Amino acid sequence: MNRDGEVFLSIERYALMRVKIDGDKKEIRSVWFEKGRVLMIDQRKLPLSLEIKGLGTVDEVCISIREMWVRGAPAIGITAAYGMAIASLTGEDVKSAAEKLKATRPTAFDLFYAVDYMLEKINIGDDPVVAAEEYANIIIEKCRSIGNEGAPLIKDGFRILTHCNAGALATGDYGTSLSPIRTAFSEGKIIFVFVDETRPRLQGARLTAWELYQEGVPHAVIADNAAGHYMRTGQIDMVIVGADRIAGNGDFANKIGTYEKAVIAKENGIPFYVAAPASTFDLSLPGGGKIPIEERDEKEVLEFGGVRIAPHGSSARNPAFDVTPARYVTGFITEYGVFTPEELPSLILIIKGRGE
Amino acid sequence: MNRDGEVFLSIERYALMRVKIDGDKKEIRSVWFEKGRVLMIDQRKLPLSLEIKGLGTVDEVCISIREMWVRGAPAIGITAAYGMAIASLTGEDVKSAAEKLKATRPTAFDLFYAVDYMLEKINIGDDPVVAAEEYANIIIEKCRSIGNEGAPLIKDGFRILTHCNAGALATGDYGTSLSPIRTAFSEGKIIFVFVDETRPRLQGARLTAWELYQEGVPHAVIADNAAGHYMRTGQIDMVIVGADRIAGNGDFANKIGTYEKAVIAKENGIPFYVAAPASTFDLSLPGGGKIPIEERDEKEVLEFGGVRIAPHGSSARNPAFDVTPARYVTGFITEYGVFTPEELPSLILIIKGRGE
Repeated sequence: MNRDGEVFLSIERYALMRVKIDGDKKEIRSVWFEKGRVLMIDQRKLPLSLEIKGLGTVDEVCISIREMWVRGAPAIGITAAYGMAIASLTGEDVKSAAEKLKATRPTAFDLFYAVDYMLEKINIGDDPVVAAEEYANIIIEKCRSIGNEGAPLIKDGFRILTHCNAGALATGDYGTSLSPIRTAFSEGKIIFVFVDETRPRLQGARLTAWELYQEGVPHAVIADNAAGHYMRTGQIDMVIVGADRIAGNGDFANKIGTYEKAVIAKENGIPFYVAAPASTFDLSLPGGGKIPIEERDEKEVLEFGGVRIAPHGSSARNPAFDVTPARYVTGFITEYGVFTPEELPSLILIIKGRGE
Repeated sequence: MNRDGEVFLSIERYALMRVKIDGDKKEIRSVWFEKGRVLMIDQRKLPLSLEIKGLGTVDEVCISIREMWVRGAPAIGITAAYGMAIASLTGEDVKSAAEKLKATRPTAFDLFYAVDYMLEKINIGDDPVVAAEEYANIIIEKCRSIGNEGAPLIKDGFRILTHCNAGALATGDYGTSLSPIRTAFSEGKIIFVFVDETRPRLQGARLTAWELYQEGVPHAVIADNAAGHYMRTGQIDMVIVGADRIAGNGDFANKIGTYEKAVIAKENGIPFYVAAPASTFDLSLPGGGKIPIEERDEKEVLEFGGVRIAPHGSSARNPAFDVTPARYVTGFITEYGVFTPEELPSLILIIKGRGE
């Protein structure tokens, strides 16, 4: 596989995310590698503007992760893998590049997984660009499988709640929580998606709504506060969310607010699914108590679009993730099938058997 | 009581809400009557600007309620009472004024209660301004009592979660959910308040934070999504919310998102209190199923400060309230004391005995 042509070929072969650019429909990934640079949709600018950024150094890649031009655990992993390829291409010390990349964000397990994957490949002398592309393609193929495994859970007529964005933007393509929704919709099922806007950064209103609109999936944005109302009044049939890190017992970290949705779903007897590739499982953690929770800048809460919404003099707290105990999860939708929390030991056997 | 001097006297006597105007501390109500006009803090402009609006006609009063210059069930009731006084003073037909005022917003029970109270007083020949002032003073005195009844529930060192704004702004003075907090703080208790920002209209970030800042009460604004995280991790000792309408069995309507906080509190063994005057009980409703839920403009979700946040082409749903079943409530803090849901029949006997 050479560096340029095949990269595009692989994008052509895998890509499904439709975007409309100047009226034309195009199919692209959210992050890809081309001519020595990482190219990515600048997710801060969505949904009102579609801008592609190009990054040629490890430091630029670090900025793009830290400042959330790219976000979503699998897409961060892909970006970090490309960042390691850039380190290798530009002659930067790969170990220090690995440290820099790992220091960008603390919660997403894929970040560490991808960097270690690349360190190993580089150490054994593999072509770093080929290795990074393989990593990206593996992740995206897993997301496609998650769609195939999860779609049968979605019945015709289902109204589905999602939180944050675990779509193609978050994973390179297909998505995790959005992948079963994409697949079910492409199979002709009548579905409707309630999109939690997902404060403070509004990834639902900005990104998930954008993806669903591009694909033509019927949906409505709601304030996060409204999800409970729709669950209690029987207007939601199923919840699907993604995960940033899953402990060995099934406790998982995901976007702040996920825990609330999980508790409310259980209280109302609504199935609650977590869609994530097996690489999201951190088997070094027996439970969720040790997952580090990133606390982000209070300005994300106190300001909106640079305009202050709270009094000058008030402060804020801004945890980016929360931990949901496994007992609230109906099933984990993975590339190896759907597993209840009780069935996780068999998934872990598969993961360990494959050395993932 | 004449129309001008005594009105100010009553404000002086009751007012506790501190505001800083051009560096000076003043004490005012959120809505009051002066020289034939309703004066009110324009709550849409807070927290960055403190503007007082004056309204001289029933139609202006209706606009101020419908467009939420004033909000909060008790403050809406006071405003409507003053609106009825204006109808009487300006010679407008009081019955049609009553219909117009009742049509402004559908959920707050105080609105209907206040208008009917005024209709009765006007019918029996009472001075309408005196009657409206008495109504306002009764409401505010009830709020003061709610503070006294609720403060003993707040222990030294408590970290308290609030949702939306049920403060002095929402009630004329003191507040309902904020009244026990004000009282506990004024007694010297060390407390900390987590303020749900309360999307989509941000009454928590804008109004509750503003009131707490004015009073000097330590607090932090959080995204609504974060409340569950702090409850699960043992960082919240108590939840206090207001109510817009309470059915006879204790099911109650309050700002959208209240239901989620109530379920999460119960799940984590955290006391959950509803602070409201007895006039918020609608004894014509045996349960919460029949409480009408106002659905507001989708732009409140899709736009922020006039700027679109969701894709053009996406729609939104925007219920302003939700209903929380009584089984999630630890106690109702009223001017007659604190009642568990099981003890509500004795509160209802008090209410019926007083003909409220």
